[in-house]
Amino acid sequence: MQRVHGANTSGHPVLQQYVPVRRLALKSFGRSLRVAAFATAPAPAPSGSALTNSGAIIDWHEQKLKHVVDSGDFNRAAVDVVFKEAFKMEKVERNTKESKVLSGYIMSTLFYEPSTRTRLSFESAMSRLGGTVLSTESAGEYSSAAKGETLEDTVRTVEGYADCIVIRHFQEGSAKRAAAVASVPILNAGDGPGQHPTQALLDLYTIRREIGRLDSIKVGMVGDLANGRTVRSLCMLLSMYDDIEIYFVAPDVVRMRDDVKQYLTARGVKWTEVSDLHEVAGRADVLYQTRIQKERFRDMDEYAAARGKYIIDEDLMRILKREARVMHPLPRVDEITTDVDSDPRAAYFRQARNGLYVRMALLKLCLADGYTP
Amino acid sequence: MQRVHGANTSGHPVLQQYVPVRRLALKSFGRSLRVAAFATAPAPAPSGSALTNSGAIIDWHEQKLKHVVDSGDFNRAAVDVVFKEAFKMEKVERNTKESKVLSGYIMSTLFYEPSTRTRLSFESAMSRLGGTVLSTESAGEYSSAAKGETLEDTVRTVEGYADCIVIRHFQEGSAKRAAAVASVPILNAGDGPGQHPTQALLDLYTIRREIGRLDSIKVGMVGDLANGRTVRSLCMLLSMYDDIEIYFVAPDVVRMRDDVKQYLTARGVKWTEVSDLHEVAGRADVLYQTRIQKERFRDMDEYAAARGKYIIDEDLMRILKREARVMHPLPRVDEITTDVDSDPRAAYFRQARNGLYVRMALLKLCLADGYTP
Amino acid sequence: MQRVHGANTSGHPVLQQYVPVRRLALKSFGRSLRVAAFATAPAPAPSGSALTNSGAIIDWHEQKLKHVVDSGDFNRAAVDVVFKEAFKMEKVERNTKESKVLSGYIMSTLFYEPSTRTRLSFESAMSRLGGTVLSTESAGEYSSAAKGETLEDTVRTVEGYADCIVIRHFQEGSAKRAAAVASVPILNAGDGPGQHPTQALLDLYTIRREIGRLDSIKVGMVGDLANGRTVRSLCMLLSMYDDIEIYFVAPDVVRMRDDVKQYLTARGVKWTEVSDLHEVAGRADVLYQTRIQKERFRDMDEYAAARGKYIIDEDLMRILKREARVMHPLPRVDEITTDVDSDPRAAYFRQARNGLYVRMALLKLCLADGYTP
Repeated sequence: MQRVHGANTSGHPVLQQYVPVRRLALKSFGRSLRVAAFATAPAPAPSGSALTNSGAIIDWHEQKLKHVVDSGDFNRAAVDVVFKEAFKMEKVERNTKESKVLSGYIMSTLFYEPSTRTRLSFESAMSRLGGTVLSTESAGEYSSAAKGETLEDTVRTVEGYADCIVIRHFQEGSAKRAAAVASVPILNAGDGPGQHPTQALLDLYTIRREIGRLDSIKVGMVGDLANGRTVRSLCMLLSMYDDIEIYFVAPDVVRMRDDVKQYLTARGVKWTEVSDLHEVAGRADVLYQTRIQKERFRDMDEYAAARGKYIIDEDLMRILKREARVMHPLPRVDEITTDVDSDPRAAYFRQARNGLYVRMALLKLCLADGYTP
Repeated sequence: MQRVHGANTSGHPVLQQYVPVRRLALKSFGRSLRVAAFATAPAPAPSGSALTNSGAIIDWHEQKLKHVVDSGDFNRAAVDVVFKEAFKMEKVERNTKESKVLSGYIMSTLFYEPSTRTRLSFESAMSRLGGTVLSTESAGEYSSAAKGETLEDTVRTVEGYADCIVIRHFQEGSAKRAAAVASVPILNAGDGPGQHPTQALLDLYTIRREIGRLDSIKVGMVGDLANGRTVRSLCMLLSMYDDIEIYFVAPDVVRMRDDVKQYLTARGVKWTEVSDLHEVAGRADVLYQTRIQKERFRDMDEYAAARGKYIIDEDLMRILKREARVMHPLPRVDEITTDVDSDPRAAYFRQARNGLYVRMALLKLCLADGYTP
Repeated sequence: MQRVHGANTSGHPVLQQYVPVRRLALKSFGRSLRVAAFATAPAPAPSGSALTNSGAIIDWHEQKLKHVVDSGDFNRAAVDVVFKEAFKMEKVERNTKESKVLSGYIMSTLFYEPSTRTRLSFESAMSRLGGTVLSTESAGEYSSAAKGETLEDTVRTVEGYADCIVIRHFQEGSAKRAAAVASVPILNAGDGPGQHPTQALLDLYTIRREIGRLDSIKVGMVGDLANGRTVRSLCMLLSMYDDIEIYFVAPDVVRMRDDVKQYLTARGVKWTEVSDLHEVAGRADVLYQTRIQKERFRDMDEYAAARGKYIIDEDLMRILKREARVMHPLPRVDEITTDVDSDPRAAYFRQARNGLYVRMALLKLCLADGYTP
C-alpha cells in the first residue's frame, strides 16, 4: 500500500504540498544525495493538535541546520542527510582532522529537568568533535528561573556564552519558544510530553543500521504506548517510508492513542493492535520495547498488572526472526530480561551509542562551516 | 563640582593619598595608557564599614592581576586596563592565537550557592580563551563543607587542582578570606550581600561602550536600591569619574541606604532622590533598572506595592533621550516590559554579553604570562 | 620479622603464589624497574571477607592498566610502576607534549554520591593530561537509577560516551560490578564502606615522597579507625613492605577492627594499640590523623567524647620527630589545629596534591597507548 504524503484529511492547513520525489533508496550511505530532491521532499503533515511540528520544515538548500526542535521538521531527504553524516561519525577517530571539526565552538546544555543519559550523550558528541561544553544539570532548580525569569530571557542571555544550546524542559513547546528568540541553534533534548527529536532520529537510524533499510519494515511497538514519547515520534517518522506495518502491543490502560492511529491511517501506514506478543515476535523485523512508566500511574495495582504483561525474555527470542532486532530507548527495568543482552539481536546498547553518532551529526550540521549536502 | 579622591571624612584610616593624575580620557580604546599613571591613580576610599574594599589596591606595576575580590580595589587606571583588554576580547575569533591564550590553564568554579548565569559566563570566558573548566554547581550542599571543612582548607585543596578559583559564597567577606590563603588567583563571583566585582565592572563597561564616556554621565538607578548589590557597587565605581549625577528612584521601603549617599557626597558626586520615574527618564543618560527582590520581603503586600511602582515600558521609552540606554543586571521579572526589548536603547542583553568580555579580560590579566600594561 | 606473602591462614583460596622477588628498593624514582619482576611480585592475599580484593591482580606484562577497582589488586611491583609515573607527573608542564598525552580521550565521572574533592581531583588529572571530562555530580539523584536502571545498564550506556569511567557509589562492590561488564577502564572513586584505591595509593605515595622510603616505617594511625576506609586500606598496602610498625590510637568506640589486625598479623606486620598519642608522636615517622565521622554516631555524647580525645596541635608537634610527617586524608574539622599548618612537617595539603599526580598516573596507565613499563 502506497502512502500519500501531505494528505489533508483532518481539515487542518496543509503545511506542504505533495511533490513526487525520486525514491531515495539509501541502500548505501556512500551514495551522494541529490540536492535537488531535498527541497521537494515533503515533511509529514500534522493531523492533530498533539502532533504538530514546529512549522519550520528543514530546507537543505540552506548551508546549515538552523534548529533541531521537532522530528516532524525532518522530511525524508533531511533524514537522509543526517544519517549520512551520522554514518561518517561512526568512523571518526581520535586526534584526526574530523575529530576537531567543532574546535573552538561552545555548546551549553540547559537542562530544566535532569536527564543524565541524554546530557552525557550530547556532551560526548560535542567533545568527540573537538568542541567545548558548558554544563547545567538542573537549570530549573538553580537558575534565574527560580527568580521569575522567562525561558526567552534565559536563552537570550545564554546565547551570549555559547554557540548552540541544548535544552531540556518539562513544558511542551519550550524548545520551539527558545528557537523563536535564539540567534544560535537550539537543540531540543526533550520538552515534557512534547518532542525529543534526537531520540526519534537515533531510533530510526538504528533501524536503518541494523535492518539495512527503512522501507518495507514491520515494527512491533510494545509496552507503554500511551505515554511513550519515543514510540509516538517513531511512528510519525516511519510514516514517511513505504510499506510500513506497525503492531501495537500494550496493556489496556496504556494503549496507543487515537491521534497517532489517525495520523498513520491518513498516511497509508498499516497498523494493528495485537494482544499476543508471541504472535508479533514471529512477524516483526523490529520489536521496540518500552518501559511501563511507574510515574504515570496513580493506581499501583494497575501499574503492577501493566508492568508484568509483556516481557521480552529468552523464550520470546526463540520465536523472533533471525534477522530481527530488539530495541529499547532505555533505561529498562525488567521488561527485557538480562539473559537477552548477549543475543546479537539485542540492539539496545548499540542504539544508545547511535545516539552519539546522530547527535554528532546534528551538531556538525548546525555549527560547522562549509557543509555541502 | 570636582570630586576629591581619598577624602577622609569618616575618621577611617586613609588607604591611599590623593595624587593628581593626568585625566585618562579613554576616548578611544586604541590609545595606549601610560604605565606611569597606573600606580598613582588612587582607588576610592571606603567611608563606612559596609563599603570597605579588600585593602589590596591593584598596582599595575605588577605583571599580573593577583585577585579580583572587590570592585573597590580597582582604581581608575586599573579599570582602564581591564576595559582596554575587554574591548580586545570582543574581537577574539575562534581558532586564532588570541583564542588560545589560556590554553593549558584550569579554572575551577567553587559555587556555594547556585548562580547559573554567572557560572556559565565565567566558564564561557575561560573556554573562549582556550582554558579548561572544573565545575562545581553547588559546593555548599555537596562538598566537604557539609563535613565541617573551613573555606580556607577547601581553597588550599582546590588550588592544587586549578590555576585559578572562581568563588561564589553566601557569606560576605568569603572571597577575601579565600584570597588570604590562596596561592592562585581568586575571582569573586559574589559573596552574599558583599561584593560582586565582575558585575560592577561589566555594568561600568557597558556604560562606557554604550554611551562612549564615563565622565559627565547622568544615571537613574531604579528599583530595589536598598538590597541591590549591583547599584551600590556601581555608585562606588562611578564616583571615580568626573561630573557624575545620580538619581535614585525607589519605592520607600527599599530606598538607597545612607552609607552610599555619604560615600558619594564625600566624593563630590551629586545625587538626588526622585519619586517620579518619568522626570528622570527625560534627563538620564542611563536608566539602570533592578528587580524588586521578593526574597528580601517578609510582608507580601509591601512587595506587591514596591514591585508595581516603577515599570519601564514603551510609554516611558518615548520620554527617554534618543542616545540614552536602559540597563538591567538581569534576571528581570516584569519591571521592564518585553515590548521594550526591540528598542535599540534596550542594552541589557548586550550588557549580559559584556560580562563575558570583562571576565575574559580579568582571567587573562590574572593568568596569562607576559602581560605588559 | 619477615612477611610471608600469600600466606593462606584463613582457608580462603590462594589467589597467587609466593614467588621470591628481587627487592625493588625504589630509592630513586629514576631507576628503571625490571619488567620481569612485575608479573612475579604477588599481591597481598585477602584473609577475610571484608578485605577481599577484586580478584584481578594487576599483571604488568599487559600494556595497560585494565581497571582501578581495589588497592589490593596492586602488588608491590604495580605500586612501583604507578609511583614512578606519578613522580613524572609532578614535572608535567603546561603546553608540553607530556601535557597532551590524553588528548582526544574522554573521561566520565559517574558519582552516585557527591564528593567534590575527589571529583575535582580526577577531573583536574584528566585535564592536566589534555583529556576531556564529562561530569556527573549526583548520578544517583538524577539519572536513570531513579527509574530503576541497574548500575550495569548505566555503565554499558555510558561506556558508549567515554573512554573511561570514574565511579563513586554508596554500595560496596559497585566498582567491581561495573568493571565486570565494562569495555572501558573503571576507576573506583570510593564505593561506600568498601574501597577507595586512589586515596590509598596517594597516601602511600605521600609517605614515599615525604619520608623517602616505604620499608622500615613506623606509622601512628589516629582517630576513627573503625570507620575510616583510608586507614584500613593503608594498613593493607603497608603490609607489602618490610619492617613496618603500626600504632593504633583511637577512642574506644572507634578502635581498629579485628579483621585488619589479623590481616597484619598474618603478614608479620607489628601493630600495637596505644592510648597515649604523645607516646606515639615521639616514635612515629608518620602520624596519620583522621576525622571522627559524626555521621557514623548515633549517640552525640559518644561523638563529643571521641572527637576531643586526640588532637594534633603545636604542643604535640614539639614531641614529633624532626623528620616525621603529619598526614590527614581531609577534610579536617578540628583534629589538627590550624597553627600546625605552617609547620613543614604538616604534609596534608601536599598529600591532597599528590592525589592529582597519582590519578594522572593511573589515567595515563589506563588509557595512553604505547606504555612500556
